[in-house]
Amino acid sequence: MQTQTSVYLDHAATTPLSEAARAAMEPFLGERYGNASSVHAAGREARKAVDEARERVAVALGARPDEIVFTSGGTEADNLALKGAAWHGREQGRDRVVVSAIEHHAILDPARWLARQGSRVAEVGVDASGVVRVDALEAATDDRTAVVSVMWANNEIGTVQPVAACAAAARAAGAVFHTDAVQAFPWIEVDAREADLLSISAHKIGGPKGVGALMVRRGVKVQPLLHGGGQERDVRSGTYNVAGIVGFGAAVESWVARRAVQSERAAALRDRLQATLSAALPGIRPSTGDAVRLPNNLHVCIEGVDGDSLILLLDAAGIAASQGSACSSGAAEPSHVLAAMGVSRSSARGALRLTLGPETTASDVDAAADAVVAAVARLRAR
Amino acid sequence: MQTQTSVYLDHAATTPLSEAARAAMEPFLGERYGNASSVHAAGREARKAVDEARERVAVALGARPDEIVFTSGGTEADNLALKGAAWHGREQGRDRVVVSAIEHHAILDPARWLARQGSRVAEVGVDASGVVRVDALEAATDDRTAVVSVMWANNEIGTVQPVAACAAAARAAGAVFHTDAVQAFPWIEVDAREADLLSISAHKIGGPKGVGALMVRRGVKVQPLLHGGGQERDVRSGTYNVAGIVGFGAAVESWVARRAVQSERAAALRDRLQATLSAALPGIRPSTGDAVRLPNNLHVCIEGVDGDSLILLLDAAGIAASQGSACSSGAAEPSHVLAAMGVSRSSARGALRLTLGPETTASDVDAAADAVVAAVARLRAR
Repeated sequence: MQTQTSVYLDHAATTPLSEAARAAMEPFLGERYGNASSVHAAGREARKAVDEARERVAVALGARPDEIVFTSGGTEADNLALKGAAWHGREQGRDRVVVSAIEHHAILDPARWLARQGSRVAEVGVDASGVVRVDALEAATDDRTAVVSVMWANNEIGTVQPVAACAAAARAAGAVFHTDAVQAFPWIEVDAREADLLSISAHKIGGPKGVGALMVRRGVKVQPLLHGGGQERDVRSGTYNVAGIVGFGAAVESWVARRAVQSERAAALRDRLQATLSAALPGIRPSTGDAVRLPNNLHVCIEGVDGDSLILLLDAAGIAASQGSACSSGAAEPSHVLAAMGVSRSSARGALRLTLGPETTASDVDAAADAVVAAVARLRAR
Repeated sequence: MQTQTSVYLDHAATTPLSEAARAAMEPFLGERYGNASSVHAAGREARKAVDEARERVAVALGARPDEIVFTSGGTEADNLALKGAAWHGREQGRDRVVVSAIEHHAILDPARWLARQGSRVAEVGVDASGVVRVDALEAATDDRTAVVSVMWANNEIGTVQPVAACAAAARAAGAVFHTDAVQAFPWIEVDAREADLLSISAHKIGGPKGVGALMVRRGVKVQPLLHGGGQERDVRSGTYNVAGIVGFGAAVESWVARRAVQSERAAALRDRLQATLSAALPGIRPSTGDAVRLPNNLHVCIEGVDGDSLILLLDAAGIAASQGSACSSGAAEPSHVLAAMGVSRSSARGALRLTLGPETTASDVDAAADAVVAAVARLRAR
């Protein structure tokens, strides 16, 4: 297809690289090509740049620089957290893993793989708004539990989770608490002190793809996922992606400085979009009901509409939207998040996720609303 | 230190990003920021670019596009190969792993970790030139062996290994054969048909850091290291590092087109460097004796000299060199490669690795030779 995207409302999938990130990366895509593990001058300047980026990421999370482990992205950070803590726990007689049923596949799938490898895994449910049931989580967590993982905010529906209560339940049982903050970090304040392990990703905040970080609180032990040269205090081996890490550091600094303002702006535009859609399509309401959700997220299920077809029609109209996780695009199964909330298969088929970004304008959301209304009318007329 | 590198002879650690790679990456660091897993137009153009890069990497290896799994680098490719094949093998009743004693830590350390997790691991020795003993490898490989891993060429001393014979031994036992071709691929023709699993890295051939690939021959099974969104036919999940992958593809194409010429040129310059050093420092000879080695590698052990101090003096003179693997820089222990060859601790202390690149000139190697000779004189006079 020759379609060009003119209105991009899929910021939960990825964001444009920010000017700040790109400018910071330039020298490291040019004359500053040293390997940050080399001891010579070319290596030292690369190492210095990596350490400055580490400092920036640490400051933004309220963590210490030596608590930041750079990874190849959110998926690797999640895998390292869950498997690394589970493997370490097994050696301490803790063979259980507790996750919520609405985690990203980068947590759910490692959990299921660990179960195949002998771990006992509990998946804790959510209420109809998509909020994890803390009482069920407490009941599932015991002194055999190695790690509890609950995302800070959901990537499909945007619900903000009760991480403090989940962390308290984990700690009461002596388990490690991990939170996937990949979607929360761009839009709300994320304090690393709430967790023992915390994942973030660069490309969700105007940084490059292929970079992320796991915050590993001092004293918390995880076994490595990538063994080798011993980088990142032996927790994550591999040649440093210097340009990517530098871009991540710059993106974090520039994004977080504007986060509060951007969130307020996005919420206002999102509410305008929601109001326009609700007025034109009676019965439309956010899938999360009154639960607290990310300010840039609008997730609805449109009755009597096939979401795949809706996304295609929007795409043809130049509107980039999605049904849910980009990672699961094209999957025949309905979203596991909606299923966990008790949404029927037929309703889930009509899922639409619109996620705004800092560069989204009022005319963008108005154009998107018009396109959704037109597409729904067309699909319902078939 | 304010030192600037003026002669870079550490291409085994990393290489400058090529113009071809950088130019190819530009649009994907700019307006083409889509997530390659998204179904809309922005996603599709990213996916198309990833698939074109995949095609280029496949062609260069003599593999099929669907046999290429993009990773975050050589370390991840090695970890995925060894652990992924070992985990799969265990479920088939094959609980053994065979590696050579001179593998990169990205293979050795996963092997040792697998041993801790219950695998039986054999480390096969090498001769005094640093060539793997095929008879010992055959003896160590049996019908309980899941995977045999022998690097195509060593990263420190540059010896080219008898991969065809090692692969034959693995196959005779029904085991999977993996080869780490990270160092070989830049300098000699590497045919994926020799192996079941084969690792390469972008930043060793003028591509960006943070990208690599594992060739997984059709029909060969590995369990994933990174579970999640199901990218790369479920073998390696995680948002595609689109710009990095595109840069990798461009770097592969441009580098491999010139590889034969560059290798011939590097060998001539390397021989000139070796001759100059031998003339000035009697007794100096390549650590590999007469074994076949990579054309850009000169590795020597200089008696009566502390290699760390030598690297520092060279650095001060603007020459970037190393003792061995960048990944092990600063390690107090002597190189495991030299130890496996039977080199004494005192000789190993004087290790010096000089690795040339496509942009290395005759005056570079002459300047490096002068600097080495001066530094050795200074160190010996202490």
